[in-house]
Amino acid sequence: MPNPITAGRRHYEDLSNGERIALGPRKVTKRDIVAFATEFDPFPFHLDEKAARQSLLGGLAASGWQTGALSLRMLVDEFLSKVASMGGLGFTDLKWKKPVMKNDTISGTATITALRRSQTHPEMGILTLALDMRNQKGQQVMTLNLANLVEVRDPTAPILEDAHEEPAQ
Amino acid sequence: MPNPITAGRRHYEDLSNGERIALGPRKVTKRDIVAFATEFDPFPFHLDEKAARQSLLGGLAASGWQTGALSLRMLVDEFLSKVASMGGLGFTDLKWKKPVMKNDTISGTATITALRRSQTHPEMGILTLALDMRNQKGQQVMTLNLANLVEVRDPTAPILEDAHEEPAQ
Repeated sequence: MPNPITAGRRHYEDLSNGERIALGPRKVTKRDIVAFATEFDPFPFHLDEKAARQSLLGGLAASGWQTGALSLRMLVDEFLSKVASMGGLGFTDLKWKKPVMKNDTISGTATITALRRSQTHPEMGILTLALDMRNQKGQQVMTLNLANLVEVRDPTAPILEDAHEEPAQ
Repeated sequence: MPNPITAGRRHYEDLSNGERIALGPRKVTKRDIVAFATEFDPFPFHLDEKAARQSLLGGLAASGWQTGALSLRMLVDEFLSKVASMGGLGFTDLKWKKPVMKNDTISGTATITALRRSQTHPEMGILTLALDMRNQKGQQVMTLNLANLVEVRDPTAPILEDAHEEPAQ
């Protein structure tokens, strides 16, 4: 029976390897930085301008986790909210390349890098996305690869091995 | 010149491979879940109990990123705030093993799994931590490996190759 919540959304079958989704832009203010850091990452270089200037970062910088959470929000707005997502599995290789400083504007792209059906749960597909987040100067601030479960519209369709994936080397 | 902010904190030299840090506990309420999801991960299964019961998760569940952010906060409180941390580099292999449901209590451990001096920046050490987060039933909810920069107290000390690491196989 179709899920009434996800019926109108893009399913596994509607996604294509290589699809690119634009994310953002979003300006990150001092207020944003201090609010997030106060709750989750209370370090002087995320909370206090004077301490921040004396740190390796050289000024008030967002928690790397805030960059992650803001990027997630962009991904939900631009993509995941239109997809029959069943939740995230995790991610690999998150790298903070450069700090996000006060009043930086971040934006980026998410690229579908793999799509495969679950072997054990035919109603589920596994979507892999590569995120490339940059500041207003075009400098990379964060990269990561995210794996997410997506509903398959027709779970009775045969599972084609590696149908959407790169050939194994 | 010693950094006045980090002078009293544990430096690279004070850390030991295998050290374990207890994290939490922290109860995750409906209010916590909805507030975080509203800002960063606005999916029905993080926002609305009825929609959540119809989802794969079977009930109101925290965003996996909230589990991450709450674990970070525990790590700051119990460990990083006492360490001369210079910021995070990123992490590998974050896995959400089980959802964190409304009113679950999460706790866990962080274990130092590697310590090495930077070859290019003698004043910096790289600390690797493995996080193992569990719910009140002892079930794993999230694991990840985190890399963080830590100040070296004596940058003039020779960099001993793999002094703190497992022997290369």
